[in-house]
Amino acid sequence: MTPRRATASEEALLRIFTVPEAPDSTLSVIEQNISQNLMGFLQESVVAVEKPLTEIELDFQQHQIPAAPQFVSDYADDMMQTLVAHSVHTSAPSFIGHMTSALPYFVLPLSKMMVGLNQNLVKIETSKAFTPLERQVLGMMHHLIYAENDDFYQNWMHSANVSLGAFCSGGTVANITALWTARNQLLKADGNYRGVAAQGVMKGLRHYGYDDLAILVSERGHYSLGKTADLLGIGRENIIQVPTAEDNKVDVSKMRKLANQLAADKIKVMAIVGVAGTTETGNIDPLNELADLASELNCHFHVDAAWGGASLLSEKYRHLLAGIERADSVTIDAHKQMYVPMGAGMVIFKDPTFANAIKHHAEYILRKGSKDLGSQTLEGSRPGMAMLVHACLKVIGRDGYEILINNSLEKARYFADLINQHQDFELVSKPELCLLTYRYVPQKVQIAMANARANNDVDKLSEFNSLLDGLTKFVQKRQREQGTSFVSRTRINPEKAHLMDIKAVVFRVVLANPLTTPEILQQVLAEQKVIASQEQRFLPNLLALAER
Amino acid sequence: MTPRRATASEEALLRIFTVPEAPDSTLSVIEQNISQNLMGFLQESVVAVEKPLTEIELDFQQHQIPAAPQFVSDYADDMMQTLVAHSVHTSAPSFIGHMTSALPYFVLPLSKMMVGLNQNLVKIETSKAFTPLERQVLGMMHHLIYAENDDFYQNWMHSANVSLGAFCSGGTVANITALWTARNQLLKADGNYRGVAAQGVMKGLRHYGYDDLAILVSERGHYSLGKTADLLGIGRENIIQVPTAEDNKVDVSKMRKLANQLAADKIKVMAIVGVAGTTETGNIDPLNELADLASELNCHFHVDAAWGGASLLSEKYRHLLAGIERADSVTIDAHKQMYVPMGAGMVIFKDPTFANAIKHHAEYILRKGSKDLGSQTLEGSRPGMAMLVHACLKVIGRDGYEILINNSLEKARYFADLINQHQDFELVSKPELCLLTYRYVPQKVQIAMANARANNDVDKLSEFNSLLDGLTKFVQKRQREQGTSFVSRTRINPEKAHLMDIKAVVFRVVLANPLTTPEILQQVLAEQKVIASQEQRFLPNLLALAER
Repeated sequence: MTPRRATASEEALLRIFTVPEAPDSTLSVIEQNISQNLMGFLQESVVAVEKPLTEIELDFQQHQIPAAPQFVSDYADDMMQTLVAHSVHTSAPSFIGHMTSALPYFVLPLSKMMVGLNQNLVKIETSKAFTPLERQVLGMMHHLIYAENDDFYQNWMHSANVSLGAFCSGGTVANITALWTARNQLLKADGNYRGVAAQGVMKGLRHYGYDDLAILVSERGHYSLGKTADLLGIGRENIIQVPTAEDNKVDVSKMRKLANQLAADKIKVMAIVGVAGTTETGNIDPLNELADLASELNCHFHVDAAWGGASLLSEKYRHLLAGIERADSVTIDAHKQMYVPMGAGMVIFKDPTFANAIKHHAEYILRKGSKDLGSQTLEGSRPGMAMLVHACLKVIGRDGYEILINNSLEKARYFADLINQHQDFELVSKPELCLLTYRYVPQKVQIAMANARANNDVDKLSEFNSLLDGLTKFVQKRQREQGTSFVSRTRINPEKAHLMDIKAVVFRVVLANPLTTPEILQQVLAEQKVIASQEQRFLPNLLALAER
Repeated sequence: MTPRRATASEEALLRIFTVPEAPDSTLSVIEQNISQNLMGFLQESVVAVEKPLTEIELDFQQHQIPAAPQFVSDYADDMMQTLVAHSVHTSAPSFIGHMTSALPYFVLPLSKMMVGLNQNLVKIETSKAFTPLERQVLGMMHHLIYAENDDFYQNWMHSANVSLGAFCSGGTVANITALWTARNQLLKADGNYRGVAAQGVMKGLRHYGYDDLAILVSERGHYSLGKTADLLGIGRENIIQVPTAEDNKVDVSKMRKLANQLAADKIKVMAIVGVAGTTETGNIDPLNELADLASELNCHFHVDAAWGGASLLSEKYRHLLAGIERADSVTIDAHKQMYVPMGAGMVIFKDPTFANAIKHHAEYILRKGSKDLGSQTLEGSRPGMAMLVHACLKVIGRDGYEILINNSLEKARYFADLINQHQDFELVSKPELCLLTYRYVPQKVQIAMANARANNDVDKLSEFNSLLDGLTKFVQKRQREQGTSFVSRTRINPEKAHLMDIKAVVFRVVLANPLTTPEILQQVLAEQKVIASQEQRFLPNLLALAER
């Protein structure tokens, strides 16, 4: 029964757990480059010219886990060539197409600390001080939205029985958690009925006498809401998409009408979701009006501020989200405009007891009365990402965020002006936060389209839009492939202001990166104009159509 | 319209995005320590003696986001004292109570690279080469379980239309994803019925003529399954917990009887879940028998191998999971015994088209025909954690894992022998993988309990167990507080082998850390014996009871 001694190969293997990479090893050198000059590292390492995905895939074909271990340095070399070289330069100041931005430098060493500590936030036993830290982050975000008094946070922030919110891997899980809780609150235990959590949706609907549940949201609501309805057993068709006005904000009078129809059909409105920063145009629903309607309907009011929520950090612009403090729950992603790395979403609950509707326990953890965070989260084991949010809140501070948010919103206004003043570009949706959409439309075409609108010539306008689609897609794709700058694209209805329903492709820009300069924005337009003028299929047809 | 120039405070703020921490800054020094000597850093930094949670909370009381930015170095200093000092030393070789273990060194610099690249795996546009990499990881794990031929992976691994699995933040999301897909496959569109995803659970049950859905699983199933049933609208009561035999494996004949009863009640068994490594005792259900039953019942067969799945990497021991290759879906956590940092779960689907049941699209991303991973995941935005799994699979290799897994299983057998041979300890559940449970029972008490069993004296046995509970809890808590070593505890039925149903508290040990030595295991027992012998309430009563 004396234990066997380790063999030589076992000893060698244990070294990966005990001996760090040498300072001059490939991986250490890469790491030093990242630490000392992230932007430079990315600029030199991520190749500018795009390689087709099918070619990239050739480096990831092997489907068997290799038998023999690979040296770390060889692995690091391989990854530089196959992975890093062909990743996306998300933090480049000229990559203004997505919601991921540059990161503050200090999050890099902190991330390493977090990984090294390898805490698991599901329970205190595996996270200790990380649990109060996460509760504090949730408390700070709660205060940012609801600004309750000192006693409130004194009583609830670290209370075993409640939770001011749930930390999640991202906004989708946050939205699911909010609406899961809302469903369980609505179909709660009552008399002999033991509640939807115990007995399922069908018995819940039967008990309460509903034919179905519905969730009302703008047609611009995030696709995660459909996923939520599917997952929760409510069904995607019961996400009722309410039309928006020309400003891309939901039309509350239409929502009210739809709610009345649903009530007549014995379909209970479970929740209204307000969008605070639509993903496609960045507009904010009239939250106060939605709060009024939710209170009329006696239903849950959730605000999906996954992207726009960060703007609450600006005293100057937080009025744009007025009414959010009336929401029962709010989703905010810290990995968007709060400059935290990927994987940091949150849902915040107005009422600290609200999340009790999804509370669960287990024998070996999450014992009753414990302060374990895992008893009120959708996820189980989770990393200590809250630490990075905590760091950003403290190191950037309200004063720092005030500048960052204000600058980004004002940069978007500047870019909108730039587009408006350029004769060959058309601003499609004005920036309310730091997101806008536009497209390239040669002046001659703009004039011809204005005439078509004046004559209410829908067919001709459709023809223009369809040709513009081809041109916009071409420009967006070519610009991405050239690798200097990147805007994204989406499909919306650019003729809405003219009361026509024509869908078309537009460029979409998010100006969250603090390092994006006015000069870069000018260059983005200049590059697009050059690409567009070289296009040989849609552009000639557009110009011909404009002359007809 | 000329853009405003940046003010001095704005310039200062931008430095956090452009200027790295100086090499001699507090944070850089901390980081170097972590890089060069993680174990040493943790040993010196994490305080050994436990501080009560209420005291730790005092450092995390502030609920307002501070206005003024804090210097990074000051923040790092604060965090060393308030957070790191009071975190859990999860990688200590003598902390054998949880499933988080030591990490290989190379994951630290790679994590920093991952964070710096800040890719978002929801779509190719924000992840590029990370998407084929993640698909390769899923392919390798699929091959590990199902070992399909080359053509299979050639056809499916990088196919736009299918997915061999889904990468998740952890095993809970993996289990939810598997059963969500199973529910949607079962209640799929049929004639005029548009499927549960579109129309919800109630209409699905009505259409197919079921009164309810049920999921059959061992009473030892993970608590995430209850959460899943709640979330999916099936209801926790419809997770039918089937008793286990004395070896903690589910009793398949009892499961078959229950399934027949359910069928008679028009309740459709939606899925059978096999547990491959129960969280509490580490036992593996008879997977082949469960696969037979699932095929009799024509239902989905899911295996929750979140913890035990890593043992498939051992040629020597993978036979313990025989039958797993017949599962329709399998959950495996890489952040458990695959030595990847927290946040890396996976669900693998046998049939590549299976996940189409939860497929979703959106206008601006996840366009149809794209290879975007986000169209078949529960989560939306996700970090590039798959890279760390990829790194471990390549750098450790099958040969390396063979040694790591075999050693951990054999270390558990060694520890079981040690417990068996110690006169004052009782092995409660034998290790099948690297997990076992035991408790401290003085020899005299063991003899008296054996007599009580022989006499079938349930009352006396209950009394013994109840006193032992107090003693076990005391020892576990005191040992944790002393800070040298840590075992966890859970409640199971230690009298099962004697056909009595008495729940009692036991020590629970997971021997996944490659650095845990036989000497450490000897010390753990020695320390427990000392603590137990000092206990002054339950121990004297136990000894007195043994003499009665």
